[in-house]
Amino acid sequence: MSEPHLLPLLDAPPAERRDAARNRELLLDAAKSLVERCGPRSVTMDAVAAAAGVGKGTVFRRFESREGLMAAVLDHSETDWQAQVMSGPPPLGPGADPWDRLLAFGRSRLETTLLHAELIREAGRAGTRSYAAYSFVAMHTRYLLGELGVTGDLPILATALLAPLEAPILDQQVTIEGFPLERVHAGWVDLARRIVGGDATRAPVD
Amino acid sequence: MSEPHLLPLLDAPPAERRDAARNRELLLDAAKSLVERCGPRSVTMDAVAAAAGVGKGTVFRRFESREGLMAAVLDHSETDWQAQVMSGPPPLGPGADPWDRLLAFGRSRLETTLLHAELIREAGRAGTRSYAAYSFVAMHTRYLLGELGVTGDLPILATALLAPLEAPILDQQVTIEGFPLERVHAGWVDLARRIVGGDATRAPVD
Repeated sequence: MSEPHLLPLLDAPPAERRDAARNRELLLDAAKSLVERCGPRSVTMDAVAAAAGVGKGTVFRRFESREGLMAAVLDHSETDWQAQVMSGPPPLGPGADPWDRLLAFGRSRLETTLLHAELIREAGRAGTRSYAAYSFVAMHTRYLLGELGVTGDLPILATALLAPLEAPILDQQVTIEGFPLERVHAGWVDLARRIVGGDATRAPVD
Repeated sequence: MSEPHLLPLLDAPPAERRDAARNRELLLDAAKSLVERCGPRSVTMDAVAAAAGVGKGTVFRRFESREGLMAAVLDHSETDWQAQVMSGPPPLGPGADPWDRLLAFGRSRLETTLLHAELIREAGRAGTRSYAAYSFVAMHTRYLLGELGVTGDLPILATALLAPLEAPILDQQVTIEGFPLERVHAGWVDLARRIVGGDATRAPVD
């Protein structure tokens, strides 16, 4: 614990605002765990309040509505996921070879997109997929393709590799065509192998 | 001209209904030409009436609203396009080798999807992309991949090859990322080459 300041520092938020931010994080962590365990649809404001050990009124005060909470969980979850990719343990995070990172990325993005698509639905009018989120995913894919020595129009190839993992296309495959998730995933790995291995300059990846 | 029947045949629609169907086709053809020439956004009911040589009231009577007309043009255009693929001239239609057919199909679908995305927007609540339309495209792609000797999970590979041509992904590339259409098209050809050429069982396509 740091020494208490006699006067508040100019740049430090007042204690009350710091507490509010911490409480918000605690609530979001509790909500995110519930959402990951039970699926967004079955998570109620009551359950989140109980899991965080606060009154239901507090949850409503912070997020206004269940839709507002779901939108905040979506944002929180996307930020967490990006942190995992940027600085989490390998193979999703740095340290593994780029092909293993690409495979871990595909698997993880597939699951994250499915969860986020549900969160977007539950968030109603408050839920939109941010362009910043897509932009991060596209940049990371482009970077991994470059590391793998893929030549060609990397931004366009990255889009092609990401497209089957995007919510509307995933929804088409899983909900409408009824393909099991494992089959969609295996198909994506095959696609990655064809895109990465399809370069004249290098041998196909096994 | 066929000999007039003295009594209406049981299966033939009454003359009045036949006329109505013919007028509807004429109006749709006129509307489709206008939409293809000028873009859906700039096509008015007045312009369609003038192009078909009928009164504006007739256009409203047949399609109820501009949205209704746009939805009907969408349907008409999709049916026409499918007919081109099934029995039109090569290379889009039968007769060309499957690689040339695939390339013609990709180019043509790219253009059709952009036009149809605009029609869907203009049709408002009346405009939805039919599952039957997607289903046809997916089946045709699967068939061509099979003809090209591609092995693997063809329905999933077909989805991957189609995904960059689907409206939300195309919109991402063209409207949000600002990639020129020719670049998106060249990227799709490269993707097709990688998917088709990525098979261990055959040499890559040039």
